[in-house]
Amino acid sequence: MNPEITNTISNNLFTINNLWMLIATALVFIMHLGFATLEAGLTRSKNTVNILFKNSIIPSIGLLTYYIVGFSLMYPGSNFAGGIFGFAGFGLSTNASGMTNAYNSGYTYWTDFIFQGMFAATAATIISGAVAERIKLNAFLIFTTIFVGLAYPIAGMWEWGGGFLNKLGFYDFAGSTLVHSVGGWGALTGVIILGPRIGKFVKKKVHPIPGHNMPLAVIGVFLLWLGWFGFNGGSVLSANPGMVSLVFVTTSLAASGGAIAAMIISWSLLKKPDITLTLNGTLAGLVGITAGANLMSPFEAILIGIISGIIVVFSVILFDKLQLDDPVGALSVHLIGGIFGTLAVGLFGVKAGWDQLWSQFVGIISIGAFITIFTTILWLAIKKTIGLRVSREEEIAGLDLSEHGMEAYPDFEKVTPY
Amino acid sequence: MNPEITNTISNNLFTINNLWMLIATALVFIMHLGFATLEAGLTRSKNTVNILFKNSIIPSIGLLTYYIVGFSLMYPGSNFAGGIFGFAGFGLSTNASGMTNAYNSGYTYWTDFIFQGMFAATAATIISGAVAERIKLNAFLIFTTIFVGLAYPIAGMWEWGGGFLNKLGFYDFAGSTLVHSVGGWGALTGVIILGPRIGKFVKKKVHPIPGHNMPLAVIGVFLLWLGWFGFNGGSVLSANPGMVSLVFVTTSLAASGGAIAAMIISWSLLKKPDITLTLNGTLAGLVGITAGANLMSPFEAILIGIISGIIVVFSVILFDKLQLDDPVGALSVHLIGGIFGTLAVGLFGVKAGWDQLWSQFVGIISIGAFITIFTTILWLAIKKTIGLRVSREEEIAGLDLSEHGMEAYPDFEKVTPY
Amino acid sequence: MNPEITNTISNNLFTINNLWMLIATALVFIMHLGFATLEAGLTRSKNTVNILFKNSIIPSIGLLTYYIVGFSLMYPGSNFAGGIFGFAGFGLSTNASGMTNAYNSGYTYWTDFIFQGMFAATAATIISGAVAERIKLNAFLIFTTIFVGLAYPIAGMWEWGGGFLNKLGFYDFAGSTLVHSVGGWGALTGVIILGPRIGKFVKKKVHPIPGHNMPLAVIGVFLLWLGWFGFNGGSVLSANPGMVSLVFVTTSLAASGGAIAAMIISWSLLKKPDITLTLNGTLAGLVGITAGANLMSPFEAILIGIISGIIVVFSVILFDKLQLDDPVGALSVHLIGGIFGTLAVGLFGVKAGWDQLWSQFVGIISIGAFITIFTTILWLAIKKTIGLRVSREEEIAGLDLSEHGMEAYPDFEKVTPY
Repeated sequence: MNPEITNTISNNLFTINNLWMLIATALVFIMHLGFATLEAGLTRSKNTVNILFKNSIIPSIGLLTYYIVGFSLMYPGSNFAGGIFGFAGFGLSTNASGMTNAYNSGYTYWTDFIFQGMFAATAATIISGAVAERIKLNAFLIFTTIFVGLAYPIAGMWEWGGGFLNKLGFYDFAGSTLVHSVGGWGALTGVIILGPRIGKFVKKKVHPIPGHNMPLAVIGVFLLWLGWFGFNGGSVLSANPGMVSLVFVTTSLAASGGAIAAMIISWSLLKKPDITLTLNGTLAGLVGITAGANLMSPFEAILIGIISGIIVVFSVILFDKLQLDDPVGALSVHLIGGIFGTLAVGLFGVKAGWDQLWSQFVGIISIGAFITIFTTILWLAIKKTIGLRVSREEEIAGLDLSEHGMEAYPDFEKVTPY
Repeated sequence: MNPEITNTISNNLFTINNLWMLIATALVFIMHLGFATLEAGLTRSKNTVNILFKNSIIPSIGLLTYYIVGFSLMYPGSNFAGGIFGFAGFGLSTNASGMTNAYNSGYTYWTDFIFQGMFAATAATIISGAVAERIKLNAFLIFTTIFVGLAYPIAGMWEWGGGFLNKLGFYDFAGSTLVHSVGGWGALTGVIILGPRIGKFVKKKVHPIPGHNMPLAVIGVFLLWLGWFGFNGGSVLSANPGMVSLVFVTTSLAASGGAIAAMIISWSLLKKPDITLTLNGTLAGLVGITAGANLMSPFEAILIGIISGIIVVFSVILFDKLQLDDPVGALSVHLIGGIFGTLAVGLFGVKAGWDQLWSQFVGIISIGAFITIFTTILWLAIKKTIGLRVSREEEIAGLDLSEHGMEAYPDFEKVTPY
Repeated sequence: MNPEITNTISNNLFTINNLWMLIATALVFIMHLGFATLEAGLTRSKNTVNILFKNSIIPSIGLLTYYIVGFSLMYPGSNFAGGIFGFAGFGLSTNASGMTNAYNSGYTYWTDFIFQGMFAATAATIISGAVAERIKLNAFLIFTTIFVGLAYPIAGMWEWGGGFLNKLGFYDFAGSTLVHSVGGWGALTGVIILGPRIGKFVKKKVHPIPGHNMPLAVIGVFLLWLGWFGFNGGSVLSANPGMVSLVFVTTSLAASGGAIAAMIISWSLLKKPDITLTLNGTLAGLVGITAGANLMSPFEAILIGIISGIIVVFSVILFDKLQLDDPVGALSVHLIGGIFGTLAVGLFGVKAGWDQLWSQFVGIISIGAFITIFTTILWLAIKKTIGLRVSREEEIAGLDLSEHGMEAYPDFEKVTPY
């Protein structure tokens, strides 16, 4: 075969694959807006500016730390020690042509960086919701910078960077563990160390604190589902037609199963169809399919979605019982959903089996232990130094006034009476 | 020519086409958020949770029913009787490799399913807005499940599945009739059987009930336009450069013509530029071009848009005169706009002519009769059994409190006084 | 090499490139929603319908004027005089096959039109925010029609249409000058001629008038960033993997640098982290990288972002000092940011040097002079004829009631007491 022709044909395929990865990057990017509106919608209006501020700045922190150290920690190439730590040097290591790539032949080095960098920040965004309405802004920003810059990429390297979990046979297609439960464990330690919002648990009784804006929450969930087409679809790492289209199908069917299941269960338990739980059912289905989105049949995807949707309802109730205050349900969706999704790889689909289930279990435990320890130390260090939580007065006044000196919805007649 | 080379080249083209169809799927998906925000914005805040709930769960219902029976009803392959009914069996019929496709060589079976499934649910979403603010949630959900699961795919098969309308020469590129007027007829029967909202028509006089949130409505229209790039552009069923780019142009110019025309007409009639009518003009232009988006020159697209924009204003006024209460203007946009768009294929563009116009007319009547009868029976059956409409007290209190026990915008000081 | 094979391979590449340009078009389209929500969020609720109306109708005005004259003015082919004016005739000049293109071999004529048309309207959208809350709707619509139909494409031709700035060596990759500062100069003359909003400057003191809805503003900035992937990424004019991926990286890192820098500077100066300035820092970073997004290394992109973020904070303070009332910060982001971004091509990256810097300077001055003169005459002509500004009473009542006879957030209990 004429090598020139072969070369041109393969360049075309490279262009297609690379294009899909960039579009997937844009879709993952929009998940940050999804998290911003979801979390703002599910919390009170007096803390809205604060939540929006955190979620607006997280992608920037995530991309810059990923540029400085994250990418090199997560994909150290051959420079690593014992499969648990590696580092390829500060900054990006290539020139502006950037066509070569250590891990994939399907797209450029730049594409690799920007796609992975968008992923990185999502882990921090998960935490943002769980610790909302009481954490100090500077404390959260410092936590996020270190968490996204160090904890996320080191844990990610264990699997996606060729580390010890990868060698062990652990499988996490798009990050039920590596993204969602990594965020989830960090959220769990944060929720425990911070304590509940004032008024949430009074004399052991749960007082629901409803979010202030349901349209925002719904916008958030739709944008997250949209973004998941890039999150899971992009994790194919090419535009391979069979694989990417299967992933679109399994992702959507799992989301659908999760929504319907959470609707039915919450309707039965609470006598009213609960929109928040139904939305969290959608998200739980999405998190649940993420670890094995490329391994499942459509029917298995629906099953995984349904189970995830059922789990999330009981999980929300359980965390309330445990007096762990998570304003947006992030622990149930991302931590519990992430764990179930990771185990699902061993229970359903083409990799199902005891060996795989064991590998999944080991992966969950390893990552869970590392992130729990890392974030516990980090939260406590921040607590001891600059402090973690706003004062009682500030919390009651709302973080918008106390941390930002402004309101999310100022009444113009009060401010400008002309 | 070397068959290996030919094969690789054609695989590349398959990958491109498939990728575009998946991106179009994601764009159609986001139309559901567009409908959710548009309908929520154009109705009252006491019914917002209810509307959001319906629109959030519709895609899940749509995809699951399409998985179970819809896809097989709409594309029965060779298994059908007399061109009016066919069924290829429950569930999806292929294995995880999913590369073959009965109807198209341009993308995978999975892609076919997920693109068509996203379309299916939009028809139900159209109805959601027209029956808003007074329908019982469980009644609507049952209606939607049966409507999307049976009525939509059976009618769709008549044209897109190779049924009798297809053989007759009826042409509906992306669904002015098959999606929009299918939803529109279901909305019309629903509006008639449900009756108007309390207070809308008092002593034969029309009392406008303004929507509670214009930013939401605007977000909705922009997202619908965005989604239409996938809805019409994806209906090319490949990434064919000339065709897809022509469709982008005609779609956008028709939307523009519709917006400008509705603005001017409403400004002349009402002395003030009406944002709701202008937004509906945009949508009417989009619905109007949908049946022939690949057949029109840019100039014809603008004409179709302008006519659609004029029609929608008078249609809204007419439905008010007829005392048919449609809170969001769905009948004018999707039913009247869909009928005009379907006829436009016979009036403008490369297929224009009396024969084509006759075929279009037959298609409109056939589908209209079927959907009208089907949905009348379905609405009445639901009415006789579980009831269709909330009580007077519930309607006045708002469906958010009566159906969901919550508010869309709770005042945090009332709920959590600390 | 077999010409048939070569042809098929090159057709495939054409399809890929064309597809990316269409997706980029959709991304640029969504920037209009970004501007709509950003501007609505940063202004008062009594003017929300008015702002939404303007931003909803601008894309339609933009596309129709671009169809009628704009495209032919901007890309006159060989029909132009002295490099400063040309015109290729009214309307689009090709038939429905539309595969040929005078300027690029990478996509169809239709794609060229729709991508460029989406760009055109963004320049007008920039002005919309700066003149908000006091301009008459009909005055603004007339201004926009003439500005987008004539001023934007004539100035654009000087560089992108092969005019004298292009021959001179001026470089503006995606429009720091040709789009952003073109909008910015028009905004500046508008702000000066209109004067400040009532109450903004009282006895030489600045009274901040906070925007009414921070979630809307945040949605706007995220959508603008998303759209910028198409704005800058599409300006590669092909799906070239190295170039498009580099542009995604530089665009995102500049946005991140801008956000972080504006956060830190505003936090230091104002003692509180200011969300509006941080959001404008993100946008300033995006505008700053736009002229040279394909020329910079990631590190240089971060630097440009940081400098842009710093500049925007001081610029906002300066315009307040100058008593120029720009409700949304459009002058600082798009005019000052656009000028800096254009100069940055001569200061950083592969084209840096004194010669380039001089060319950049000449381009900024030429375009600035033309747009300033053009828009001054246009604003004044409108002022003398139909008037430019609403009355004092109308401004105090709000433009929603006075110009549209409706409210953005009507209280349903007032309107429909049942």
